[in-house]
Amino acid sequence: MSIRIGIYGYGNLGRGVECALRQNPDMSLTAVFTRRDPASVKILTEGVPVYPAARAKEMTNEIDVMILCGGSATDLPVQTPEMAALFHVVDSFDTHAKIPAHFDEVDRAAKAAGKTAIISVGWDPGLFSLMRLYGNAVLTDGKDYTFWGRGVSQGHSDAIRRVPGVLDGKQYTIPVKSALEAVRSGQNPELSVREKHTRECYVVAEEGADKARIEAEIKTMPNYFAEYDTTVHFVSQKTLASEHSGIPHGGFVIRSGRTGENGEHKHVIEYSLKLDSNPEFTASVLVAYARAAYRLASEGQTGCKTVLDIPPAYLSARSAAELRRELL
Amino acid sequence: MSIRIGIYGYGNLGRGVECALRQNPDMSLTAVFTRRDPASVKILTEGVPVYPAARAKEMTNEIDVMILCGGSATDLPVQTPEMAALFHVVDSFDTHAKIPAHFDEVDRAAKAAGKTAIISVGWDPGLFSLMRLYGNAVLTDGKDYTFWGRGVSQGHSDAIRRVPGVLDGKQYTIPVKSALEAVRSGQNPELSVREKHTRECYVVAEEGADKARIEAEIKTMPNYFAEYDTTVHFVSQKTLASEHSGIPHGGFVIRSGRTGENGEHKHVIEYSLKLDSNPEFTASVLVAYARAAYRLASEGQTGCKTVLDIPPAYLSARSAAELRRELL
Repeated sequence: MSIRIGIYGYGNLGRGVECALRQNPDMSLTAVFTRRDPASVKILTEGVPVYPAARAKEMTNEIDVMILCGGSATDLPVQTPEMAALFHVVDSFDTHAKIPAHFDEVDRAAKAAGKTAIISVGWDPGLFSLMRLYGNAVLTDGKDYTFWGRGVSQGHSDAIRRVPGVLDGKQYTIPVKSALEAVRSGQNPELSVREKHTRECYVVAEEGADKARIEAEIKTMPNYFAEYDTTVHFVSQKTLASEHSGIPHGGFVIRSGRTGENGEHKHVIEYSLKLDSNPEFTASVLVAYARAAYRLASEGQTGCKTVLDIPPAYLSARSAAELRRELL
Repeated sequence: MSIRIGIYGYGNLGRGVECALRQNPDMSLTAVFTRRDPASVKILTEGVPVYPAARAKEMTNEIDVMILCGGSATDLPVQTPEMAALFHVVDSFDTHAKIPAHFDEVDRAAKAAGKTAIISVGWDPGLFSLMRLYGNAVLTDGKDYTFWGRGVSQGHSDAIRRVPGVLDGKQYTIPVKSALEAVRSGQNPELSVREKHTRECYVVAEEGADKARIEAEIKTMPNYFAEYDTTVHFVSQKTLASEHSGIPHGGFVIRSGRTGENGEHKHVIEYSLKLDSNPEFTASVLVAYARAAYRLASEGQTGCKTVLDIPPAYLSARSAAELRRELL
C-alpha cells in the first residue's frame, strides 16, 4: 500500500516532485492541483488527473500527504495552513526571517485538524540547516559559514529584468574561492558580505539601449548588488537561451571549531551540494520528508515540525533494521 | 540543573569526553570509572573523583548518562549492556558488521531496566552514517562513496608493530585524489579497494634489522596491506615522536545521483571531516548524543537507538524555537 501524494502547484518544483515520486516506489501520485485552467496543464504522468485547486478539499479520503509547491512570498503563507487543515503537508517555505511566524500558523491549523506538517523543507532551509545544527552540536566552540553557489538566484535575475532597457537576464551567485579556502583552513576568518560572494550577470539589452547605464544601474542596486562585486556581461537572447537556461545551484556549509584541554585541536566539517537542477533537488528532499510526515502521522505525532525535528530514519523507505545493517 | 555524566574508561576517548563536557555548560562530570588503580589515573577536572569500575553500580542516583569509552573489540560488547541496565548510556561501538547483534543485546538490557541507550555514536559509524542516510533518502537513484583519511589507523599501526624487527610504527590511510575527483564529477565510477585508498607507513626498525624484509612483510600482509598500494618509510624513534604523534583523521561521504524525467540532471552531495584529533572529535559527538539520550529518557523513550533514530534538535542545548530562529 503506497503513500498517496497530491501536488499542489505545478511549476518547476511541482514537476520536480512528480519526477521524484517515480524514483520512490512506496509513494504514488494521486492528483495535481493548479490555480490555472487544468486543461492547460500537461503533466508527465499518464492517467493522473489535474484538478482545480479548489477541488483539493473534496479529496481528503484519496490523498495522504499534500506536497505544496507554491512560492514563499505569497502562496505558502496562505496555502500551507489551509491545506494542513485537510491533509498531512510538506512545504519548502524559505523566507528565513518569517519561519517562526509561518511555523505558528501551520502548527495551529495542523493541530486543530490532527494533521502532521513539515515546513521549510529543501536544502536551505533544509539539509543546510541540518548541517548547521549537527556542526553546532558537535563543535560547540566554533564558527559557522554558509556559502551559496555557483548557482542561479531567481530573485536577483528578476531584479535585473526590472532595469529599463533589459529584455532578459540571469544572475549567478558565486562563492569567493579565497574566502572558502580561508574557512577550510580553520582560520575562522571574519568575512564581510562582499568577501564571501560575487555576482555575475548575463544581460540581454534592448537594441540601442545604453549599456553603460544599465550596467551602472545593476551594479549600484541596493540590497541586490551594491554590497557585492558584480560583473555584467551583455549577451544575445540566443546565447542566454543556449548557455544559461539551466537552474543549477549549490553551496557549502562549513563548521570550524576547536577541542582539547585548551582548544589545541582544530576540526573542520564541510558539507557541499553541486546541483544541476535546484527545483528537482528541492523536490527530492520534499518527497523524502513527505514519507516522514506520513510515518509521524501514523504514530499520532501531529502539529508542525521542521527538518530539525525529524528522526533521519523516517526519511528512508528501508526498515530500521535494514538501515542499521546497511548504512550505519 | 545540569545533566550528570559519568565516564566509563579513561583513555584518549574518555579524556576527550572530559574536555568536551567543559564546552557544554548544561552537563557536568560526576565521576570517572576505571579498571586501573584509580590512584594511578590523573584526570583534568579538579574535584571530580576517579572510582574503580565496580563502583559504578552504586551510583545510579548520582549519574544520569554514562558515556562508555572502552574499545569495540572486547570492552563495549560486555560493558554497554551491563551499564544500560543501570544508566542511560552512549557508546561508540564501531565494528560495523557486529552492530545488529550489539544493538539487540543493548536493547534488551535497556528496555528491561527502562533506560535509554544510543550506540555506535561518533563519525563512522555516526555522522558519516547520517550522511549516507540523508544522501540515499534524497537521491534515490544514486551511488554512495565513503573515503577515509588522511588519518591514522590504529589497527594498521598495531599490525605494523607486530612485524619482527619493528620497534614502533604509525600508519596513515590516504584517499586517492583522482578517485575522489572522479566521484565528485558525478561519473559514478566503480572503484576497487586499491583505487580508493593508499597506505603510508612510518616505521622505526631495530638496529641492524633487515629493512627490506620488514618492508616486504608489511606490504604483503593480507587484509591489512596486500590489497593496497603501500609506502614504507623508515624513520628514527625521535622523528616518529616529533612528526607523527598526533591522531588526526577524517574522510569523505559522497552521494552522487540523478533526477529529472529521464535522469538528465546530476547532483553531488559531499560531506567531509578534517580532524586534528580523532578521539576528541568522537568524544564531542558522544557528548551531544548524551544530551539526546537524556531528553529521550525524560520523554520515556527507552531501549536502544542509533544516530539514525535521533531527532537532530535533541542534540542541541538550544530550544526548538531558538533553533528555528537561528539555524533553520
